[in-house]
Amino acid sequence: MKSSEFDLVVRNARVATASDIFESDIAIRDGKIVQLGANLPAGAREYDAAGRVVTPGGIDAHCHLDQPMEPPVRMADNFDSGTRAAACGGTTTVIPFAAQAKGQSLRAAVEDYHRRADGKAHVDYGFHMIVSDPTPEVLEKELPQLIREGYTSFKIYMTYDDLKLNDGQILDVLDVARKYDATAMIHAENADCIQWLTKRLEASGRSAPRYHAVSRPMLVEREATHRAIALSELADVPILIVHVSGREAVEQIRWARSHGMNIMAETCPQYLFLSAEDLGIDDSYQGAKCVCSPPPRDQANQEVIWNGLNDGLFTVFSSDHAPFNYDSPEGKKPNGEEVSFGHIPNGIPGIETRLSLLYTHGVLTGRMTLNRFVELTSTNPAKVYGLHPRKGSIAIGADADLVVWQEGERAISNRDLHHNVDYTPYEGQQLKAWPCLTLSAGQVVWDGEQFHARAGSGRFLQRGAPTLLPKRHQARF
Amino acid sequence: MKSSEFDLVVRNARVATASDIFESDIAIRDGKIVQLGANLPAGAREYDAAGRVVTPGGIDAHCHLDQPMEPPVRMADNFDSGTRAAACGGTTTVIPFAAQAKGQSLRAAVEDYHRRADGKAHVDYGFHMIVSDPTPEVLEKELPQLIREGYTSFKIYMTYDDLKLNDGQILDVLDVARKYDATAMIHAENADCIQWLTKRLEASGRSAPRYHAVSRPMLVEREATHRAIALSELADVPILIVHVSGREAVEQIRWARSHGMNIMAETCPQYLFLSAEDLGIDDSYQGAKCVCSPPPRDQANQEVIWNGLNDGLFTVFSSDHAPFNYDSPEGKKPNGEEVSFGHIPNGIPGIETRLSLLYTHGVLTGRMTLNRFVELTSTNPAKVYGLHPRKGSIAIGADADLVVWQEGERAISNRDLHHNVDYTPYEGQQLKAWPCLTLSAGQVVWDGEQFHARAGSGRFLQRGAPTLLPKRHQARF
Amino acid sequence: MKSSEFDLVVRNARVATASDIFESDIAIRDGKIVQLGANLPAGAREYDAAGRVVTPGGIDAHCHLDQPMEPPVRMADNFDSGTRAAACGGTTTVIPFAAQAKGQSLRAAVEDYHRRADGKAHVDYGFHMIVSDPTPEVLEKELPQLIREGYTSFKIYMTYDDLKLNDGQILDVLDVARKYDATAMIHAENADCIQWLTKRLEASGRSAPRYHAVSRPMLVEREATHRAIALSELADVPILIVHVSGREAVEQIRWARSHGMNIMAETCPQYLFLSAEDLGIDDSYQGAKCVCSPPPRDQANQEVIWNGLNDGLFTVFSSDHAPFNYDSPEGKKPNGEEVSFGHIPNGIPGIETRLSLLYTHGVLTGRMTLNRFVELTSTNPAKVYGLHPRKGSIAIGADADLVVWQEGERAISNRDLHHNVDYTPYEGQQLKAWPCLTLSAGQVVWDGEQFHARAGSGRFLQRGAPTLLPKRHQARF
Amino acid sequence: MKSSEFDLVVRNARVATASDIFESDIAIRDGKIVQLGANLPAGAREYDAAGRVVTPGGIDAHCHLDQPMEPPVRMADNFDSGTRAAACGGTTTVIPFAAQAKGQSLRAAVEDYHRRADGKAHVDYGFHMIVSDPTPEVLEKELPQLIREGYTSFKIYMTYDDLKLNDGQILDVLDVARKYDATAMIHAENADCIQWLTKRLEASGRSAPRYHAVSRPMLVEREATHRAIALSELADVPILIVHVSGREAVEQIRWARSHGMNIMAETCPQYLFLSAEDLGIDDSYQGAKCVCSPPPRDQANQEVIWNGLNDGLFTVFSSDHAPFNYDSPEGKKPNGEEVSFGHIPNGIPGIETRLSLLYTHGVLTGRMTLNRFVELTSTNPAKVYGLHPRKGSIAIGADADLVVWQEGERAISNRDLHHNVDYTPYEGQQLKAWPCLTLSAGQVVWDGEQFHARAGSGRFLQRGAPTLLPKRHQARF
Repeated sequence: MKSSEFDLVVRNARVATASDIFESDIAIRDGKIVQLGANLPAGAREYDAAGRVVTPGGIDAHCHLDQPMEPPVRMADNFDSGTRAAACGGTTTVIPFAAQAKGQSLRAAVEDYHRRADGKAHVDYGFHMIVSDPTPEVLEKELPQLIREGYTSFKIYMTYDDLKLNDGQILDVLDVARKYDATAMIHAENADCIQWLTKRLEASGRSAPRYHAVSRPMLVEREATHRAIALSELADVPILIVHVSGREAVEQIRWARSHGMNIMAETCPQYLFLSAEDLGIDDSYQGAKCVCSPPPRDQANQEVIWNGLNDGLFTVFSSDHAPFNYDSPEGKKPNGEEVSFGHIPNGIPGIETRLSLLYTHGVLTGRMTLNRFVELTSTNPAKVYGLHPRKGSIAIGADADLVVWQEGERAISNRDLHHNVDYTPYEGQQLKAWPCLTLSAGQVVWDGEQFHARAGSGRFLQRGAPTLLPKRHQARF
Repeated sequence: MKSSEFDLVVRNARVATASDIFESDIAIRDGKIVQLGANLPAGAREYDAAGRVVTPGGIDAHCHLDQPMEPPVRMADNFDSGTRAAACGGTTTVIPFAAQAKGQSLRAAVEDYHRRADGKAHVDYGFHMIVSDPTPEVLEKELPQLIREGYTSFKIYMTYDDLKLNDGQILDVLDVARKYDATAMIHAENADCIQWLTKRLEASGRSAPRYHAVSRPMLVEREATHRAIALSELADVPILIVHVSGREAVEQIRWARSHGMNIMAETCPQYLFLSAEDLGIDDSYQGAKCVCSPPPRDQANQEVIWNGLNDGLFTVFSSDHAPFNYDSPEGKKPNGEEVSFGHIPNGIPGIETRLSLLYTHGVLTGRMTLNRFVELTSTNPAKVYGLHPRKGSIAIGADADLVVWQEGERAISNRDLHHNVDYTPYEGQQLKAWPCLTLSAGQVVWDGEQFHARAGSGRFLQRGAPTLLPKRHQARF
Repeated sequence: MKSSEFDLVVRNARVATASDIFESDIAIRDGKIVQLGANLPAGAREYDAAGRVVTPGGIDAHCHLDQPMEPPVRMADNFDSGTRAAACGGTTTVIPFAAQAKGQSLRAAVEDYHRRADGKAHVDYGFHMIVSDPTPEVLEKELPQLIREGYTSFKIYMTYDDLKLNDGQILDVLDVARKYDATAMIHAENADCIQWLTKRLEASGRSAPRYHAVSRPMLVEREATHRAIALSELADVPILIVHVSGREAVEQIRWARSHGMNIMAETCPQYLFLSAEDLGIDDSYQGAKCVCSPPPRDQANQEVIWNGLNDGLFTVFSSDHAPFNYDSPEGKKPNGEEVSFGHIPNGIPGIETRLSLLYTHGVLTGRMTLNRFVELTSTNPAKVYGLHPRKGSIAIGADADLVVWQEGERAISNRDLHHNVDYTPYEGQQLKAWPCLTLSAGQVVWDGEQFHARAGSGRFLQRGAPTLLPKRHQARF
Repeated sequence: MKSSEFDLVVRNARVATASDIFESDIAIRDGKIVQLGANLPAGAREYDAAGRVVTPGGIDAHCHLDQPMEPPVRMADNFDSGTRAAACGGTTTVIPFAAQAKGQSLRAAVEDYHRRADGKAHVDYGFHMIVSDPTPEVLEKELPQLIREGYTSFKIYMTYDDLKLNDGQILDVLDVARKYDATAMIHAENADCIQWLTKRLEASGRSAPRYHAVSRPMLVEREATHRAIALSELADVPILIVHVSGREAVEQIRWARSHGMNIMAETCPQYLFLSAEDLGIDDSYQGAKCVCSPPPRDQANQEVIWNGLNDGLFTVFSSDHAPFNYDSPEGKKPNGEEVSFGHIPNGIPGIETRLSLLYTHGVLTGRMTLNRFVELTSTNPAKVYGLHPRKGSIAIGADADLVVWQEGERAISNRDLHHNVDYTPYEGQQLKAWPCLTLSAGQVVWDGEQFHARAGSGRFLQRGAPTLLPKRHQARF
């Protein structure tokens, strides 16, 4: 092999994978990692990482981009701004959702989302489907066919009127996941309980943003988590519970695991770095900026989440980026009004800050090993969602999606972020590390100062079957 | 770099690490892995792995070699035969024990064991110390000094009259582990309970080998496990519970983890592939061949162990190789007699069969991913015992300790094994894979047919601090 | 007081209450217990209990009598035959259900059931309401008013299409229980799961009675139990889970209790004395005789139920008598056909055998104290359902509802029973004790040989608030 | 029966037993309850309870009287003052300890304690033995013989150097309990852990009373509780864990119960009405007044104890009265000095305040039913310790030990108490009820104003086998 065969060599990297840390050069050709070793031959281009930590590009497996909402509400990020922010934050693969509207075919939904992404994405992407209308046609034809085409995961909602499935429908969808080896994600909150509480809170005039947290106490998450586990057990297929927020849901998942069930779990930055107090300690509407579901909890629960991240309870760490402007009639103030908590668009931005926050508070404080950081933010999402070994590691043959890390001191400011949202819930929080180089398929998209637009270079990823869990498990029924 | 700079290139490997699987050549120089990639330049020697799985060499972090016993009993394996068997079974690093006798200094113990290993070992090795006499001298001077010299782990016994420590002594030893960042291993069984049961069983004539299992029911392991956890909590330092056998101890460890405690755990082949019935369903003395502590349990408990291996409960998978001949007055028949179960030397051989059994029943049946296999048998032991990144992975800069796997069908027969023991408890069990090449520091020690002796080439490993767990944890007292 | 003031004196009784056992005479006047002591003055009548155990009359708080079913199915027992069987089995108070049909007012339902009972009942009775249609009218007016009138308990179904409530409706009904201090009973099985499994079983031709058990595995009961607990926690009111069948539901209830929640539980004879095998080990239709929900489990679960009965987990032991003939087009063979398990009328008879079976297997084998027997079968139901101290004990001022026990050996035979059902699921099971005298309000209704009809003497009981649990508990929301 | 046959009739009582509450007169003859009913014939004496609650006299099953201590320390109460205080507080039976010194025969110990009690006790009493030296003679001869003579319970210590047994000895003693049907009480704290912590605290100058709590964190109680449970399981005999203080031990006991083990538990007023802060929030020596073991915890743990009292976790509620003067060289200031916490005599007075505190905070606030109050303080202790039905209830044939309750408002003041101790840890706490009449065997010992000495009338109680638990349980080994 001649040196000219390398398009780029990243020198003197402190390479971190989910299992290892080693000093090496990284040689890239045709967007792939082709060689590792010391003193590799020169490449067409060179980047001296100078002993800096280099991790695989992040995979954000839970984010919402350009998803149509009920008017007047509109998401602030489309595939252009969303993947721009992702890239600048070190994320080189996103898997947003393609949501089926009731009555719509999955195919139509998927095609709609492709139109939204085409020509816009700066990094690679896939789609999870959201199944909101599991007709026989969907279950027997569309879903199997789409799985074959590389949409190997889908999300099931247990709450939200326009999306939620009943238990029988969930079983039907899980059964497809089992038969065709796809990954089912579940949003676990009990819709009836939330509605019951919301009605009472609103009826008694408690409508400020902070009552959002009161209307979704941990027990409504715990109940739905337990139910989801039971449905998984009955359908005999692993599931992944998304955005787990605290102790009560965590205990259910531990219980399931200790009984041999394959229950995976995801958590998000908001459950480590925000608390219910961020929704307001008085009735200020500013709390709307942190309205997301489940709501952030308290410090004791943050500790529970940290423990779960370290000891293997959690499988993936995603952003659940759901971008709505605060000061906008299309966002947190629908029609320009300060509305009751039950009507505030749910979701907060976080696609760009996810990795830096975890690196800062996890890796650099010694709360989390660097290996585990890589595993949670890149390798495991790749495996769970059928992207490994193409994505999720620094290894021979993998896509050259890399992040070089720089340490320092810096406060998060929405001015510096690249999303289209007019605020960040983490405004003012200190960072001690951030990406100073992001490569997507060997191309620089972020150099620490500048975003290098690649709109349309981001490729749609046909994903395979999940590879995280062993294939064989005991069927129960 | 010129091709001649590689001493050996392993071609076309299906490389498996704890996190990844990828196709690559592996270039070796001076006993180290120096380059990974496709189509690497030619080496002085070449080995075509032909698409076969190549894993890091196994690390057996729990084995007993040439440990002096109370006469007439004698271990059947010394460092020559023991590391020979290890190598032929794919294990390239062993960490046997250097046991302190009561009244002996740790230094004297360590020096004695060095004499036993010097010039004999075919693969690299370290020593865990066994602390049986934690005098102030030991606690304040010897242990800290030896940790600095690379003996960064030690074992604490809660049973066996000549070795066991009381709770206060255990706290003292754990305190040293905390202060000097060493790993404490604990053999958790309640000595008094065992003795009480043994006395009653023997008094009533129940002395056949199978009563060994009756004398050590799971509750005696569970109690000691709970106690060890409490001591770890009090001393505020992680521990590793060795040879966990079944549900009751597992439940205690899960409980501790769910409360944020750093409790690591090890299990062994005997808890997957043997059961209490192997100690005899009648009073036959043949059961003595499977007398080890804790005893193998039953099939339901084997399932619990499998679950724990897959879901992260277990950190390492070791052999607990403790080699005694069956038909020998120095072994299971002391002075040539069939003795009461309480007097049968405890321990069974397993250093050579550990990896093949797990590969066969785990990886090849789909019960365990290949990544997890590597993690449990090599990467995690390297991290827990301060050998990573030198050992435990296939990565740039690591020692070239490699195993190439061959699939097929074959029954275990003691005739084919390389230890010095006159039986194997797994006689006749079917294998579907075994090592067809073992490299230690780039040198062939086993080629699938032939053992290539390297007595004395095995190096003593000065080990560092553990790197598996994050450094920071909340002090409780 | 002159001797003639006693209508009846029961002499030489070995009186058992929920807490005590003592030797005493029992003097009765005007249907009440008026004096206890040795050597009481003579009564108008005398009965020599001759050292026999005398317990308070049983209270069967879960039984179905004359409840209209979807044609052609019809219950075999009305208030005449049902209370006759109760009395002969030692039960002197029954609380069957007054079920609201969808669209029907509760008042209409209650009046209908009064018509069914009037003039027929041989022992005292109350009604639990079944709320199947919790309209605002029902929640805000009818239910509060009926509670005030003495219908202080109601049952909520989580399964059965014509009866089940969704989670929001359950919360609404529980809220009424909290506000007006009534007892809510919950039938906890997940309807969707059962339906999903049933469809699959039937679609694959598995329609024999024994598949009834397969269609309702313990997890569907566990899930609903967990959900019911969460709803109770949210509504901040105690609940009673009826007919708990085995380990998985029991574990949820223990979990709730250990977190300070007031979750009460009931179990029934079928979970101690029947198992899933009684539904058939082949496809015989005879298994239909044991089709009830939840289904009986296995021996290990029977042990779990026994433990729960002894250690306080269970509050009450009822029959869940639901009487359908086997060989009848109105019963287990609707329209005379052997139907798929999903269409077999759910329920089995047991009102007459409940006490004797528990006395035999509990008290006489030493598995249960006599005090606990009384507590579970009489005192606790009286307290939970607002009948204490009038009912549920042998104490001054209480109704003279008494059972005198005779020991011996005898097999259960349907020929000897007094219900209107053509079989008993306990046919052939051995008894070692049975009532040889039952007094209802001081009148003999069963003398051990003969039933003494008192049709119409049975009084409707206006019940008060529950008194088992302390009044004050911490409100959570 | 003629009216003159009653020595005393208590009129118009609101009688409360462990299961019932009813209005009745109570007729007493020869120290026994002989008749219950309304309008009983006149007695030689009459007492009009005027609708007041009348409960069975309290049984204090855990109190220390006149127990020799290591000089200069001496208990402040002997059998005269101790039983005087008991009687004035509504307790009519005490079961203090007869402690074996190492080397002493049990017989000698028992005889010594009889000498201490003879002619002094104002109420009836028994003795639990404390076995500190389980020699073969003790195990095989003395203990069985003393059980036969009515000493049917004994206490085992897991801490305190002069009393503690090792696990093997505990098994031996439990085995005697099993064989001869006695009740074993266990003080569960891990001695080594306490010693290890104490040494460190004292070495760093932390010697004030409040460090007593730090030296005995909940985990040392939890560990010993788990161990005691395991020993009970192995020896296959129920045990009673005394003075359980909080969550961690409670969770172990719940765990054991849920696995079908017969583990009983006791708690005491100090775990409801005191907290660790009462040992001092600064280094004041006043905290010594609350030094007892285990130490009081915090408010969250008090809630856990309340839950356990209500839901059946706890079997008995005792005082653990251990009387030492505060301002005395024989008491909390040995030789007149303020000593390090490790040398402060362990124990606090509480025999007189136990019932009033629980009645006030439990019954009168609605946290506990009156039935449960009676069960915990009288009926259950009578059953567990072989005194039922003679003691522990208001029933025909029982001893006429009665308490009449008066409600009002009153602060606890040591001036008003009748023990010999110079302080009460509850000084200033408000009471809302207290005994206004205590009858022991039908004799007035306390009339609400005045103590009526009966020194020597208190009888030694030969106790029988325990009757609380069912006899039959599954043997495990």
